[in-house]
Amino acid sequence: MKGAALVGQSGGPTSVINASLAGIIEGVRERSGGRIYGMRFGIEGFLEGDLLDLSSLPDQEVGLLKATPGSALGSTRRKLTDEDLPRVRELLEKYDIRYLFLIGGNDTMETIHRVEAYCRRTGYELFGVGVPKTVDNDLVGTDHTPGYPSAARYVALSVLQGGRLAADMQRVDKFAIYQTVGRDTGWLAAASVVAKRRPDEAPHLICVPERPLTLDRFLADVERAIASYGYCYIVVGEGVVWEDGTPVSASQEKDSFSNIEFGAMGGASAALTLHRILKDRLGLRGEFQIPESLAMCASDRVSAIDREEAYACGRKAVTYASEGRSGIMVTIERSSSKPYRFTLGSIPLGEVARKTKPMPDEFLTPEGHFVSEAFEEYIRPLVGDIERFARLF
Amino acid sequence: MKGAALVGQSGGPTSVINASLAGIIEGVRERSGGRIYGMRFGIEGFLEGDLLDLSSLPDQEVGLLKATPGSALGSTRRKLTDEDLPRVRELLEKYDIRYLFLIGGNDTMETIHRVEAYCRRTGYELFGVGVPKTVDNDLVGTDHTPGYPSAARYVALSVLQGGRLAADMQRVDKFAIYQTVGRDTGWLAAASVVAKRRPDEAPHLICVPERPLTLDRFLADVERAIASYGYCYIVVGEGVVWEDGTPVSASQEKDSFSNIEFGAMGGASAALTLHRILKDRLGLRGEFQIPESLAMCASDRVSAIDREEAYACGRKAVTYASEGRSGIMVTIERSSSKPYRFTLGSIPLGEVARKTKPMPDEFLTPEGHFVSEAFEEYIRPLVGDIERFARLF
Repeated sequence: MKGAALVGQSGGPTSVINASLAGIIEGVRERSGGRIYGMRFGIEGFLEGDLLDLSSLPDQEVGLLKATPGSALGSTRRKLTDEDLPRVRELLEKYDIRYLFLIGGNDTMETIHRVEAYCRRTGYELFGVGVPKTVDNDLVGTDHTPGYPSAARYVALSVLQGGRLAADMQRVDKFAIYQTVGRDTGWLAAASVVAKRRPDEAPHLICVPERPLTLDRFLADVERAIASYGYCYIVVGEGVVWEDGTPVSASQEKDSFSNIEFGAMGGASAALTLHRILKDRLGLRGEFQIPESLAMCASDRVSAIDREEAYACGRKAVTYASEGRSGIMVTIERSSSKPYRFTLGSIPLGEVARKTKPMPDEFLTPEGHFVSEAFEEYIRPLVGDIERFARLF
Repeated sequence: MKGAALVGQSGGPTSVINASLAGIIEGVRERSGGRIYGMRFGIEGFLEGDLLDLSSLPDQEVGLLKATPGSALGSTRRKLTDEDLPRVRELLEKYDIRYLFLIGGNDTMETIHRVEAYCRRTGYELFGVGVPKTVDNDLVGTDHTPGYPSAARYVALSVLQGGRLAADMQRVDKFAIYQTVGRDTGWLAAASVVAKRRPDEAPHLICVPERPLTLDRFLADVERAIASYGYCYIVVGEGVVWEDGTPVSASQEKDSFSNIEFGAMGGASAALTLHRILKDRLGLRGEFQIPESLAMCASDRVSAIDREEAYACGRKAVTYASEGRSGIMVTIERSSSKPYRFTLGSIPLGEVARKTKPMPDEFLTPEGHFVSEAFEEYIRPLVGDIERFARLF
């Protein structure tokens, strides 16, 4: 490797995104004598010339990064415009940057894709490799995305514990609604199934955007769970929709990527709507639980596999770039579920950028409101072992 | 000890309430050859004759109880009426119950107080001892209440991690509002201070019911934090009120104890109101985080001191009862903060029942919106050590 390297983070953070950053820093240090810079606040800060020189960061601090949640470099959701590209190239030249690593989701892959293509078109040699990151798990071309297993573990532990509380409090409250993030897909809501070991245990209903809700069936399923188990614990993805496509959430503001925005960001949420419906239609008392982005930064609830993979993806990106590969994103390929084993691969950025991967049909029950055994097999090794509790009845 | 013992749990659970239950079971087993019964769903189930015989519960299961959240016997919020008392006595006689242990908050202490007094009045020998429990920490006569340190740890970890995320995402969102439970008092919201090690770190504002909010000052303080640090992380107790006494939360439903009910139970919350205000008045984008009762059952975030004390309180209740003491609640007395040391004591139930202990003035800043150093000294040993993260800028 000759010249300097540049690394940035963008989009929402995860609990292990800094493990990928540590992998990139350690990889570059091993393979290159050149400098390594960090974009402060992603491409947004970079355009302002806001760079951090990470070349002399103490090893101990790099080690601590592996257990630090959030985006340690600072993040952004700024979308790159065509007008930004000359300025980007100018800054790359100024610092003699020849290697570009961005850790992010599908919007981030689009950013790196465009910068890499622009540099190629204008004759500036740049190797650009993307490192996948999103708790939403909706990136195509990879078995799963770093960050998802840890957020899934947060959801599973919350529903395990909250479900236990709901069972014990069933003489007071008849239901609880736990809302996960996930704008377009139900991967995180679905992960709550790991909490369930017996039919009476939470979750009883899992509502995901891939399976539109029918009000009557939703109410009937809630009533059935209460009749059978004394209470109903519902997990809902924030982007869940009614049959006609209307978001269950009331709010429809847009963020700067023109995605429709649900959940706590918009000041409304699917959980609030469903809570109100159960109260008004069935006269039930219950609570909603909206931890929102806390699932994206819970460093004490990280999945061990996730941390290992996130770090390995960062290292692999450097390996690929040092071999002269560019315009790709690192991918995770599962070679076995029992025991869990993975290898790393790659996919062209153009096949990833701006695409989302919904849960496949075979991971959901046909009638909706729950997941299949195939999904359980997929998710359990990613989340890892969870606690067992005493049961007196 | 002669005759059988009866134990029940009521009110909202905690992460360590079952450690107190384990302490009672193990204490009774050591000191008595008699049976030990559990009320299923507290006094409500007991009145229906719903008892669990815990006499032959395997030791291993009792051990597992110490790490099991929720109320393993099932809980209730049913209020005991005068008409219930003869039925209670009838059941006590039926099972030859001479020792009554209830684990709960101030409403629960009222229950045991009335049963114990009724039995004394009607000539039935019964030794009744209360074991304190509430995440709200609002019981009088005790340094703190078992359950509070663990819920405080959940809040501190959430704000530590969520604060880190908010700092990294400050180019996207300008604020986050984290809501804690706590109807009348701000003890849990205040505990978030443990997350803060530097002025720029979360939390920036702590809003508690003991310090009514003034809209103008609230807005000014939020703007000041954003100007200084780039973002504002606000922690708010669900029961926070405006200067005229109006709850910040919109909902004013009542529960069966005639407490005004805020938060997620009522379908509205202070965090939602403040979120809307910051959006409408200051044009800011941000999110709310309402984990609600998940802080009351997070078994993987238990404070080690809390588990030890909860168990010890259960044991002590049995010791007191076996010595012929009755009509008291076990209390925790702090003998030292550095290093933290405690002893156990007692207080007459009549001095505890139905009373709440707000945060004292010296634990809050005079102008509101934050806590004092005296409170930090009080809370840090209870929460225990928390993680340290890498910081790149």
